[in-house]
Amino acid sequence: MPELRKDPVTGRWVIISTERALRPSDYKIINEEIKKDGECPFCPGNEHMTPPEVLSYRPNGGSPNTPGWNLRVVPNKYPALNKYGEFNRQGEGIFDKMSGVGIHEVIIETPDHDLTLSTMPVKFIEDLFWAVRDRLVEIKKDKRFKYVMVFKNHGSLAGASLSHSHSQLVALPIVPKRVSEEIYGARQHFDLKERCIFCDILRQEIKDGIRKILENRDFIAIAPYAPRFPFETWILPKYHSSAFEENQVHEMENLASIMKDFLTKVTKILNNPPYNLVLHNSPFVDGIKEIYHWHIEFMPTLTKVAGFEWGTGFYINPTPPEDSARFLREAE
Amino acid sequence: MPELRKDPVTGRWVIISTERALRPSDYKIINEEIKKDGECPFCPGNEHMTPPEVLSYRPNGGSPNTPGWNLRVVPNKYPALNKYGEFNRQGEGIFDKMSGVGIHEVIIETPDHDLTLSTMPVKFIEDLFWAVRDRLVEIKKDKRFKYVMVFKNHGSLAGASLSHSHSQLVALPIVPKRVSEEIYGARQHFDLKERCIFCDILRQEIKDGIRKILENRDFIAIAPYAPRFPFETWILPKYHSSAFEENQVHEMENLASIMKDFLTKVTKILNNPPYNLVLHNSPFVDGIKEIYHWHIEFMPTLTKVAGFEWGTGFYINPTPPEDSARFLREAE
Repeated sequence: MPELRKDPVTGRWVIISTERALRPSDYKIINEEIKKDGECPFCPGNEHMTPPEVLSYRPNGGSPNTPGWNLRVVPNKYPALNKYGEFNRQGEGIFDKMSGVGIHEVIIETPDHDLTLSTMPVKFIEDLFWAVRDRLVEIKKDKRFKYVMVFKNHGSLAGASLSHSHSQLVALPIVPKRVSEEIYGARQHFDLKERCIFCDILRQEIKDGIRKILENRDFIAIAPYAPRFPFETWILPKYHSSAFEENQVHEMENLASIMKDFLTKVTKILNNPPYNLVLHNSPFVDGIKEIYHWHIEFMPTLTKVAGFEWGTGFYINPTPPEDSARFLREAE
Repeated sequence: MPELRKDPVTGRWVIISTERALRPSDYKIINEEIKKDGECPFCPGNEHMTPPEVLSYRPNGGSPNTPGWNLRVVPNKYPALNKYGEFNRQGEGIFDKMSGVGIHEVIIETPDHDLTLSTMPVKFIEDLFWAVRDRLVEIKKDKRFKYVMVFKNHGSLAGASLSHSHSQLVALPIVPKRVSEEIYGARQHFDLKERCIFCDILRQEIKDGIRKILENRDFIAIAPYAPRFPFETWILPKYHSSAFEENQVHEMENLASIMKDFLTKVTKILNNPPYNLVLHNSPFVDGIKEIYHWHIEFMPTLTKVAGFEWGTGFYINPTPPEDSARFLREAE
């Protein structure tokens, strides 16, 4: 008998297929080559092909927009939003709109064109997280923005248009719906129990163990109880923390380390699948320090079905999280 | 300057790219062939290849599960849910689950293997809508179910696994999240204004005209103000109606007719794209007759980006709805 399971944070029901559950080898992993139109704009020597950098890590010094960097943050050449301007909120009859003011940046994670998050040295992953923090701290000063989305598209099917390893960052004047929903759910739980719902989930997952994938001193990787996608994984700080930018040095190190170990397992058992990573961080608003718990969500692109789930908000997951956690736990 | 627009029903903000807006010819339409493993189970003569039919339209009579039908409804051979059993709601510590009890059926829309919704006679589309109504009326009698999702996946990229034209129906013991959100938004508007929000939207769209695609006596097809996807379209009854199953004969005729005209336009300007159709109907609960307005949502699969939108609930739409409505209006 399949199961209907409810995500305790968002209240979303999903169908988990327990019979004929799909194993990693049952998925057809599509690794479409990303077409290269001439030179890679993210490679050293091509710094002039991107807008001027807003941040770079240069262990041996050097001038901006020249080679010698380990990591570069540059404005997106084709931003979805404009950096300058006022919001200009207005109605159009029954409808509401505002100007598309926002920041859209790219974090180039390594000078090496061929490395990926799972093959690059763990220090590069740590640098990525430091760069995310630096930009969060900086962008937070601009009171126009309420939220910064940080995400990574790996592979063509997951939405990447350049193969050189990079992440993206979008600062928004509004809070995205999914984040609002999580905060709403977390607040309801807090009002009732005076406890963080994610901390409660963690306690149960650590005790049960069946959905746990990896754990180190500061972080844990689990398959969530009601995942929408096969092999969906959440990486959470083990001790309550609402804001990614408050990570300490040992936390950045352990986050990089668990991410590297996790992606190595994924690459192994799912044959380097296309995937998305999304940072779920607190919005820049008051009163959520106690109720929200930042985390990173990982979703590999294993199935083609798209519009139906988009259209209904209803998901059928052919691999139970207990199975996906076990496959990942046992990898290597 | 791009625009941030808010969907008045769900409250979701989307980015609408107004500069460098994409035209139909800018999308790479991927029409992957659906692989045929031997005989088509939906073709006449192969009735034994499906579970026994629960409904069929046979204008010249004939026995069940033999040729001679115009339309057949059969249980899905690989259902996502089990028809029999009790719900057995239970907790697992902090989590909630229930048995996967539900109905999963397939509506085979035509005996002709090669017809599609846009090429079949309009009478077949009308039959499809009558079959949906028949099944809704029947399934509603089973008090275990709260909602029936009706949808169509056309083309491999949109999730179809068989090419013979068909729709699907899933009866659920819960209301899917997206539907709950719509009802919540509609109820808030009704509480404030004592008017249906969809009726208010329709009035403005008819007056403005810029997002209108097609209209007949009973129905209108519009590009919504804040669409998540390029060429997303809603088909709504012009006069308030909360339940699809209350359609009268002239409404069924006009719904089939607007659907045929709309899909003909789509096939023309977007080169027969993969797409999803989803019926947004009232759940089987009390007290929403005045506030909810049933409709059909159309989403073509034009872009590959997937996980990011899934992960964040945030959408960037590269074709403004005013443009998509104009392209479709002017087609043919």
